[in-house]
Amino acid sequence: MTNPDTRNCDTIWHNARLATLAEGADGLGLVEDGIVASRDGRIVYAGAASDAPPLDADTAVDCERRWITPGLIDCHTHLVYAGSRAREFEMRLEGASYEEIARAGGGIVSTMKAVRAASENDLIDDTLPRLDALLAEGVTTIEVKSGYGLTRDDEVKMLRAARRLGEARDVRVRTTFLGAHALPPEFKDDADGYIDLVCDDMLPEVAKAGIADAVDAFCEGIGFSAGQTERVFAAAARYDLPVKLHAEQLSNLHGAELAAKHGALSADHLEFLDEDGVAAMAKAGTVATLLPGAFYFVRETKLPPIDALRRAGVPIALATDCNPGTSPLTSLLIVLNMGATLFRLTVDECLAGVTRSAAQALGLQDDIGTLEPGKACDLAIWDIEHPAELVYRIGFNPLHARIRAGK
Amino acid sequence: MTNPDTRNCDTIWHNARLATLAEGADGLGLVEDGIVASRDGRIVYAGAASDAPPLDADTAVDCERRWITPGLIDCHTHLVYAGSRAREFEMRLEGASYEEIARAGGGIVSTMKAVRAASENDLIDDTLPRLDALLAEGVTTIEVKSGYGLTRDDEVKMLRAARRLGEARDVRVRTTFLGAHALPPEFKDDADGYIDLVCDDMLPEVAKAGIADAVDAFCEGIGFSAGQTERVFAAAARYDLPVKLHAEQLSNLHGAELAAKHGALSADHLEFLDEDGVAAMAKAGTVATLLPGAFYFVRETKLPPIDALRRAGVPIALATDCNPGTSPLTSLLIVLNMGATLFRLTVDECLAGVTRSAAQALGLQDDIGTLEPGKACDLAIWDIEHPAELVYRIGFNPLHARIRAGK
Ligand SMILES: [Zn+2]
Ligand SMILES: [Zn+2]
Repeated sequence: MTNPDTRNCDTIWHNARLATLAEGADGLGLVEDGIVASRDGRIVYAGAASDAPPLDADTAVDCERRWITPGLIDCHTHLVYAGSRAREFEMRLEGASYEEIARAGGGIVSTMKAVRAASENDLIDDTLPRLDALLAEGVTTIEVKSGYGLTRDDEVKMLRAARRLGEARDVRVRTTFLGAHALPPEFKDDADGYIDLVCDDMLPEVAKAGIADAVDAFCEGIGFSAGQTERVFAAAARYDLPVKLHAEQLSNLHGAELAAKHGALSADHLEFLDEDGVAAMAKAGTVATLLPGAFYFVRETKLPPIDALRRAGVPIALATDCNPGTSPLTSLLIVLNMGATLFRLTVDECLAGVTRSAAQALGLQDDIGTLEPGKACDLAIWDIEHPAELVYRIGFNPLHARIRAGK
Repeated sequence: MTNPDTRNCDTIWHNARLATLAEGADGLGLVEDGIVASRDGRIVYAGAASDAPPLDADTAVDCERRWITPGLIDCHTHLVYAGSRAREFEMRLEGASYEEIARAGGGIVSTMKAVRAASENDLIDDTLPRLDALLAEGVTTIEVKSGYGLTRDDEVKMLRAARRLGEARDVRVRTTFLGAHALPPEFKDDADGYIDLVCDDMLPEVAKAGIADAVDAFCEGIGFSAGQTERVFAAAARYDLPVKLHAEQLSNLHGAELAAKHGALSADHLEFLDEDGVAAMAKAGTVATLLPGAFYFVRETKLPPIDALRRAGVPIALATDCNPGTSPLTSLLIVLNMGATLFRLTVDECLAGVTRSAAQALGLQDDIGTLEPGKACDLAIWDIEHPAELVYRIGFNPLHARIRAGK
């Protein structure tokens, strides 16, 4: 006789150890003898076996005491691009100057040219190996930015390609329009004119097509000014699109404060963030997305103000920033180690940074990022003895299985 | 009618691009339209298709313009160990002192205890996942050190386990006896007494059993003195075993000079190496094995004297130094990137560092490390557009196939 309280599930993962990352739980929310149950792609129960309600499932998976974490989230990437900058990297090591590299066709302009020359399908083909590397480590959600097309049609092409990654593979994709990434050569000496184009031509088209979930900009001496950034934010608001910002990477233009003022989901990089910026972010609930891969690759020495962020209670996310110029990195596990080794984040902070806080940086905190009832059943199942191993080890992938929406 | 000059081969890899790394070739020894031919596990021909002699093979493999490099060589590892130091890593990030970690059972003593408690089979089981991670990136030869047993029988056990890795997997294993790695607690305050044991008890047993290809020591303030190191070298000479040395990692005890004086195959780490040490190594033909993973993991800031090594013509090898305390790293591809990013080695230097120079660091330069006739046909075949990509990318494994002794 069936217990009338029994909940019907599609799948139960049992005999597992859990790091639920649940909001309010202690540390990682560790559960020694845990169960995750899913129905229709959502988590019905995640917690101790002893506390579970009666559950009835079509499929029961014995996890043999493996660890289950939320599926990993890479919340800041420039994954869609074309061309290679490996030769530029080689020249730089051989002592070539920026000028020589530019003459040899290097720099961001080379990526822009390759992206403009590529079709939407080309972009997808070029990107899939990078995406597959991420997925092989348990990533179930990625954010992808535009920003190498720098014309309306090429930006739209990038965003469409990014969206289609979610059809080519079983992964949740969030797209971000980053028209204000760099000044294209045809607007040399007319950054304001380019921002006009971003706000009045590109963004309306992107919004109409419904192909962006957020709007981003690069606020920096070598990028766009705070005033230009603010214009982009104002335009995003007209289309009800949330904003985020590349801020305080190389200098302090008070971009994070500006972003917070506009209710930004996240401010990203932040090596040069000051106390006022931290306070503004805390007040606005803006996530600090740190990118240790770029820090490592450009040999930055100034650390982001981790302690100040901690004290203010600003959630810290970690992401690959995968891009051909400053972070040719397609491993979120390596990012975990870099977060600990280079930024001295704790194991708990690192793991929250690629799950719970990364979800928040995408505005998806109600949907993903923790093992809690009602959220998508996106899981990573690991062949490890303790979650700390995910942060401690370098160049090792102990993923046993990746579950997306319960499958 | 067969051309009487035709050479019979087992396998020909054609339509390939080669980085032969051949001694004396320009740079990486690049060949645009290349062939590698093997017979009985050895290379018969490696070079331009247009220069090839008539070749007749049972098997022809179309490489579809993929790149072939020599199989990679990890010439400095502590791959065989038991236990995990992930929890210690976690505690350190949480601010625990060395004392607290020692009290919680951390540090090298914890690895020693785990190794002593493990059987030879346990050690192999624990090591295989680490080995498999290396092999998945095209590694065909590894060096493995003892040094966590620190008793005669436990050191012998480690070396036997290391040797047996070469039976469990298709990989060439070179073993190094590193009894003088750390002072075991039972010899506290009696380092000389422990060195007696290393020289008069352990080493004779290891030599008799024929289970070590070289002898190593850790010459450092927290390791053994130059005098103690010299005693180990003298004992090694009695058994005709070549030596190598962990030298100048944390301070300058002039260990590299000492090693060179004893004709060492390599001196390893070398952050604090001085000009005299460089000159001595150059004169003796001692390879400089640099370990950027340990440099990264312990957040060292003092760089090894790369330019001085270059000027003196000292060959530079790169290795993982895989070990649980200071380099929990099982990716030679990440080491390539770290060699470039952290040490500013060029692409050519990095790639020579895990092939030609790594072979020399093991005394195997006549056998492996380049694509040249007579050498073992150990190949790595890559899905890349240029060898620079192997160094440039992080967290990406483009290995297409790994060939060991022609298979
Ligand atoms: Zn970015
Ligand atoms: Zn070592």
